[in-house]
Amino acid sequence: MGEKPGYHVAVVGATGAVGERIIELLHETDMPLASVKLLASARSAGKKVSFKGETIEIEEAVPESFKGIDIALFSAGGSISKQLAPEAVKRGAVVVDNTSAYRMDENVPLVVPEVNANDLKKHQGIIANPNCSTIQMVAALKPIQDAFGMSRIIVSTYQAVSGSGATACTELENQSESYLQGTDMQADILPVKSDKKHYPIAFNALPQIDVFGENDYTFEEMKMVNETKKIMHAPELKVAATCVRLPFFRSHAESVYVEVEKEGLNAADIREILEKAPGVTVQDNPAEQDYPTPLSAEGRKEVFVGRIRKDLDESKGFHLWIVSDNLLKGAAWNTVQIAEQLAANHLLS
Amino acid sequence: MGEKPGYHVAVVGATGAVGERIIELLHETDMPLASVKLLASARSAGKKVSFKGETIEIEEAVPESFKGIDIALFSAGGSISKQLAPEAVKRGAVVVDNTSAYRMDENVPLVVPEVNANDLKKHQGIIANPNCSTIQMVAALKPIQDAFGMSRIIVSTYQAVSGSGATACTELENQSESYLQGTDMQADILPVKSDKKHYPIAFNALPQIDVFGENDYTFEEMKMVNETKKIMHAPELKVAATCVRLPFFRSHAESVYVEVEKEGLNAADIREILEKAPGVTVQDNPAEQDYPTPLSAEGRKEVFVGRIRKDLDESKGFHLWIVSDNLLKGAAWNTVQIAEQLAANHLLS
Repeated sequence: MGEKPGYHVAVVGATGAVGERIIELLHETDMPLASVKLLASARSAGKKVSFKGETIEIEEAVPESFKGIDIALFSAGGSISKQLAPEAVKRGAVVVDNTSAYRMDENVPLVVPEVNANDLKKHQGIIANPNCSTIQMVAALKPIQDAFGMSRIIVSTYQAVSGSGATACTELENQSESYLQGTDMQADILPVKSDKKHYPIAFNALPQIDVFGENDYTFEEMKMVNETKKIMHAPELKVAATCVRLPFFRSHAESVYVEVEKEGLNAADIREILEKAPGVTVQDNPAEQDYPTPLSAEGRKEVFVGRIRKDLDESKGFHLWIVSDNLLKGAAWNTVQIAEQLAANHLLS
Repeated sequence: MGEKPGYHVAVVGATGAVGERIIELLHETDMPLASVKLLASARSAGKKVSFKGETIEIEEAVPESFKGIDIALFSAGGSISKQLAPEAVKRGAVVVDNTSAYRMDENVPLVVPEVNANDLKKHQGIIANPNCSTIQMVAALKPIQDAFGMSRIIVSTYQAVSGSGATACTELENQSESYLQGTDMQADILPVKSDKKHYPIAFNALPQIDVFGENDYTFEEMKMVNETKKIMHAPELKVAATCVRLPFFRSHAESVYVEVEKEGLNAADIREILEKAPGVTVQDNPAEQDYPTPLSAEGRKEVFVGRIRKDLDESKGFHLWIVSDNLLKGAAWNTVQIAEQLAANHLLS
């Protein structure tokens, strides 16, 4: 792309569901781009992608790919990140990693820009993008914590199949067709491709996302617990999660109960804080049946909050319904936002 | 049906989704049946239903229908119950009402037989069958309350469309087909047929079941709150609910957080109590990915409990995943169980 001024950006995992969204978002970014390099596995190398009127050929991601790259956006699975992110850093790139590989590493900032952009300043080459279900929750809850304190979170999730990748979306489509035609549903991908058993997701609900840990919580549930405490800088915050996969394609929804520290608040106080919160849109008018749903949030960058209610018994307890597009704010958009913040704050070298 | 010894039973709403299940369950009941009368609206009168080798013609439900009836099982909507249940009682029948018309009436027992069968003794002609989402929750939680005390419940539901009747099932089917064919989805029934706005349920989630009350909770949510306290005889119990409609046909699932009163318990203690609980089946083996789902519970009478975990921070807190067929234990089966209990305990006159 010649000698344009700006940043040299690489996208690793350019052919995946999140990688494709990242490329779309790079079309629109205000960040000056000198060049965009698209990287993927050897299998995808040679494919061509059009970007701002130019044609970019996808290259195989190897250590040398990162020579001259300022910022590398990784979204190709944890093992690729573990293998290549250090190689990218060694060659002078700053990595924004969209996998779980480095999230709990104490030397790696875990960042939702609206929540803890300041943590970017401490980066040592790698910044982690949190788990999709965590991002949308902390984006809505951090402003409440800042205003009123927060002592506990109990969340039950309603998560889209695209969180398990494009093959899970195809599986939901195929199973739905089979069910409607009265034939058997084939299950090979969900709940977890590499796990022992697979169950149909079409017209069903699976209370398992990622594999089970020794404490009988799933890894997805523990990601929500641990990442939330890290991002919100709140090791003492009580967090409990139950994560459920559901038969829709895009956007995660969350039924969230929180207890604040300040006494005497009502739902209007929470609503007022959220209406001013960056990246958050309050969509909450029961009289008009106005509340967010997975379909209404699809393709949008914001985190939507509705069904804001005070608990009927607990004076510091509140309930919220938080919905956001898991591929955008939950992944690609948060990644591009981090890149923009790094650029704007001269943290790219 | 001649002069057989036993009870004369009427089913009101015989052509509805729940009425049809009640008729199926009456095929299997041990309760001696002298006759079965099937009642519905004038529109359905004249239709013929086969029952144990005989053909029964559906009659229009009018006050005189209940002459000679011992027990009338109502499942035809609240307004029919309000109009005809007193007429049935006046003519000597005992009514089991599957609508919300009488549930919170202090003279009407609200009964889940495994939980509070004793309340049947106080009946004055009408017994109410609780809301589907309440029944399965209290069936699982009452044994825990009895063993360890209980101070609070926070539930987020995952509810099937059949809770909104057969037309909602057809709507989900039609919308799913439209979506898969890439055409627009028509929404006329959900979330609430009589409400102002309708949204697609296919590949979506709607955080509204029944209409909104003045406190911004839905009626479904308040049913769970109020009915749970009444059935469990626990006016002081803290109960909070968020109710969500999802794109599957049968069985409700619930992510439930409870706090018990006894200190020092662990998940194994909860599991042990539930393994002995009547009507409850524990299905909880994370190592084998064994947990209940809406599809696995469909057509079964039990309440299934899985994902039993101790809270990570709160020593008296536990999480459970409760699933049951909303048309069976949530409606028809609980109704027939009440009838059987009334017969077994000579409470039918």
